[in-house]
Amino acid sequence: MIDSIKKIIKNYPNNEKIIIKGWIVSNRGNKKIRFINLNDGSTVKNIQIVFNELNFDLEEIEKWKIGSALEVQGIFKLTPNAKQNCEIEALSAKNIAPTDDNFPIQKQEINLETLREIPHVRHRTNIFRSIMLIRSTLAKEIHNFFESEGFLYVHTPIFTTNDGEGAGEGFVIKDDIKNGFFPKKTTLSVTGQLHGEAYAVGFKKIYTFGPTFRAEKSNTKRHAAEFWMIEPEVAFYTLKEDIDLADRMLRFVIKNTIEKHPDEFQFLDEKSNFKLLENLNKFLNNKLKVIEYSEAIEILSSASDKFVEKNIKFGIDLATEHEKYLVDEVFLSPVAIINYPKEFKAFYMYLNEDNKTVAAFDLLVPGVGELIGGSQREVDIDKLIQRIKYYNISQEEMQWYLDLRKFGDSGSAGFGLGFERLVMYVTGIENIRDSIPFPRTFGSIKM
Amino acid sequence: MIDSIKKIIKNYPNNEKIIIKGWIVSNRGNKKIRFINLNDGSTVKNIQIVFNELNFDLEEIEKWKIGSALEVQGIFKLTPNAKQNCEIEALSAKNIAPTDDNFPIQKQEINLETLREIPHVRHRTNIFRSIMLIRSTLAKEIHNFFESEGFLYVHTPIFTTNDGEGAGEGFVIKDDIKNGFFPKKTTLSVTGQLHGEAYAVGFKKIYTFGPTFRAEKSNTKRHAAEFWMIEPEVAFYTLKEDIDLADRMLRFVIKNTIEKHPDEFQFLDEKSNFKLLENLNKFLNNKLKVIEYSEAIEILSSASDKFVEKNIKFGIDLATEHEKYLVDEVFLSPVAIINYPKEFKAFYMYLNEDNKTVAAFDLLVPGVGELIGGSQREVDIDKLIQRIKYYNISQEEMQWYLDLRKFGDSGSAGFGLGFERLVMYVTGIENIRDSIPFPRTFGSIKM
Repeated sequence: MIDSIKKIIKNYPNNEKIIIKGWIVSNRGNKKIRFINLNDGSTVKNIQIVFNELNFDLEEIEKWKIGSALEVQGIFKLTPNAKQNCEIEALSAKNIAPTDDNFPIQKQEINLETLREIPHVRHRTNIFRSIMLIRSTLAKEIHNFFESEGFLYVHTPIFTTNDGEGAGEGFVIKDDIKNGFFPKKTTLSVTGQLHGEAYAVGFKKIYTFGPTFRAEKSNTKRHAAEFWMIEPEVAFYTLKEDIDLADRMLRFVIKNTIEKHPDEFQFLDEKSNFKLLENLNKFLNNKLKVIEYSEAIEILSSASDKFVEKNIKFGIDLATEHEKYLVDEVFLSPVAIINYPKEFKAFYMYLNEDNKTVAAFDLLVPGVGELIGGSQREVDIDKLIQRIKYYNISQEEMQWYLDLRKFGDSGSAGFGLGFERLVMYVTGIENIRDSIPFPRTFGSIKM
Repeated sequence: MIDSIKKIIKNYPNNEKIIIKGWIVSNRGNKKIRFINLNDGSTVKNIQIVFNELNFDLEEIEKWKIGSALEVQGIFKLTPNAKQNCEIEALSAKNIAPTDDNFPIQKQEINLETLREIPHVRHRTNIFRSIMLIRSTLAKEIHNFFESEGFLYVHTPIFTTNDGEGAGEGFVIKDDIKNGFFPKKTTLSVTGQLHGEAYAVGFKKIYTFGPTFRAEKSNTKRHAAEFWMIEPEVAFYTLKEDIDLADRMLRFVIKNTIEKHPDEFQFLDEKSNFKLLENLNKFLNNKLKVIEYSEAIEILSSASDKFVEKNIKFGIDLATEHEKYLVDEVFLSPVAIINYPKEFKAFYMYLNEDNKTVAAFDLLVPGVGELIGGSQREVDIDKLIQRIKYYNISQEEMQWYLDLRKFGDSGSAGFGLGFERLVMYVTGIENIRDSIPFPRTFGSIKM
């Protein structure tokens, strides 16, 4: 059934009758003829409906406002010599849901900040149509990728009594104990990894894809209080195989999404200040760069006068400015940094033989910075207990996790991909608030 | 790359060398030969590894415990005359992660209640392997279905300041205002529908698939505090088209899942007290029954002595016992009940011309009861305001939702499918706690 503008534009037979529903994007013309552009959200492209004075009261049609829902019957015409390659000659039409005068999306462009105030209608602009269509496909392609590699999709819990990263950034549920709902202090999960590891022992290859919450009071372009995360975990994998998995996944997902959205990428490419498609293709056509943390430190310390944080030596955590310099000015492409000092990485990461670094990686991409963070997991239970104590995490709460190591866990590896950051990287938009339908950030919650 | 037991069993060439990793399910034999069954979570089926005294110290191998992770090199052999259709003759093997004596999953069967105490390892039984493999595929097929019909996948927010159903069952975030994190009282969403409706106006066909939370203090086999829900919403749809969508989706998802899991369904079918596959196929092979609420009342009132709640007349909400009677004893198949009295249905449902009923449907299935609830949405803003007042919902909070009706909303329809209930229906398991990896229910949260 051809019922979307996306399919109609591609496949509809010339001179055939058609019924179509959608929303008015523009309405222009004169006393003899009117042209209404209609969009139905299946593509960023509109279809032109032509109304002539013989069949219609054009004075009436002139009153039809942008945003109104139309039902149109007409004849589909290929127009190879016109600006658009097809149009519909209307035979009858009905304004089935007229907008009132307050509909905020009109022909003139509105800036992104203003649109953030109206998340319930901003998707009716070309920019958000493009972003949200691409976002939907990115999500689907992530599922497709993991299915193609035989992964089990696991829903790890949102409510948890564990503090996964030991960072204390979980939102707490009010009165859970007082009301007798849950017997323990319950927070919203900051990661599904620990529960995911339990399932990797037994199912071998698993992934999660769900919302994650951080009560981090940072008001940046890259942080949200609620975001979606993809976390694969594979038993028997080492760091190298983990990075290869991340690389393979990104290529699969980005390549397929670009192929499915030529019109949306063309729109975003023309809109962007940099070469969006050229940069994505450069990633697709080149091998992923992998460098040691110690190499990154060398590169950064030789450019230390460029940074606010100038004291750059082995042992420091990389700040956003450092990460951005590496991808935006040195490598100009995605880069994986491996083997970080253990001091600022999570307790569960595999301690390398040097006893100083852990088998972790961060994958940085231009324009966004950290997109993926992952690691091989520590399998030695004594080392894990030491690290848990170092971070003041309750061993009792973590006992079930430690027990996995006694129950056939030979070590696994995995990573976390921030989905909104992937959307930012792929669409070229610069603020996380524009990558998710209804953003929730520090100090802001609308609708 | 053939790297899973599922693929090996199907496709591996006879007499070829193979390397395989997995976990020990059983270890039996004598002084001359040992047989280890290995599972890697790709299927409920195991593969048999044969160890002979020429290549191995069998006294050592006898010590290898259930649950340990093995890496085996061997020769793959088709064994068409044996109980299992293939096996691996081991050439070398390594116990890469031995279990200790406390590993709880041994050969004897453990009841489901006991397994609920150990959600981090219960998936290493045949029953939970089957349930979780099927659950993963059900989720994937839901995405496949909506993609095949051109739907946009939308992530609606979990944090919300709206109370979608007006039922006051939202978990509240602690100290959000006090800490200055959010400016308003923030709850965890009980539905993505309202936000989904906003996106249906513009994208036409959308769906959500995400976790949902209800602070309902009910301790039943069918209620969880955290569960996943699928909510499609389609602009221009009426109740009839909405029910057809639900029906089409269920058939697509169930049919494809059965096809992909012959071994898991065979296991569950043999396990179940009723005819699991026969019942599912009966649904697939017959038209969905649709009856009026008033008809349901007639059927129930003629059997009123069977119920605790015997006062059955037009106007009452159906209790679980009534719903179960209809599907488990009268229809013995899924049934959609339509046009409920407006008094106990949500404010946003379309008021029928009789001014008494709303264009809603509940889809009930055997063994589970309500699986899906949906409706056509009210488009008349004055009627909506009346209904909002009737339920004491703040109009100010809902203004953005009401505004949609002025912004080209010609009415939409949609439904909510409880994903865990779908898993219960399809796998035949009777308690929601066994349908989700780490269940969170009233009074219980583990790990």
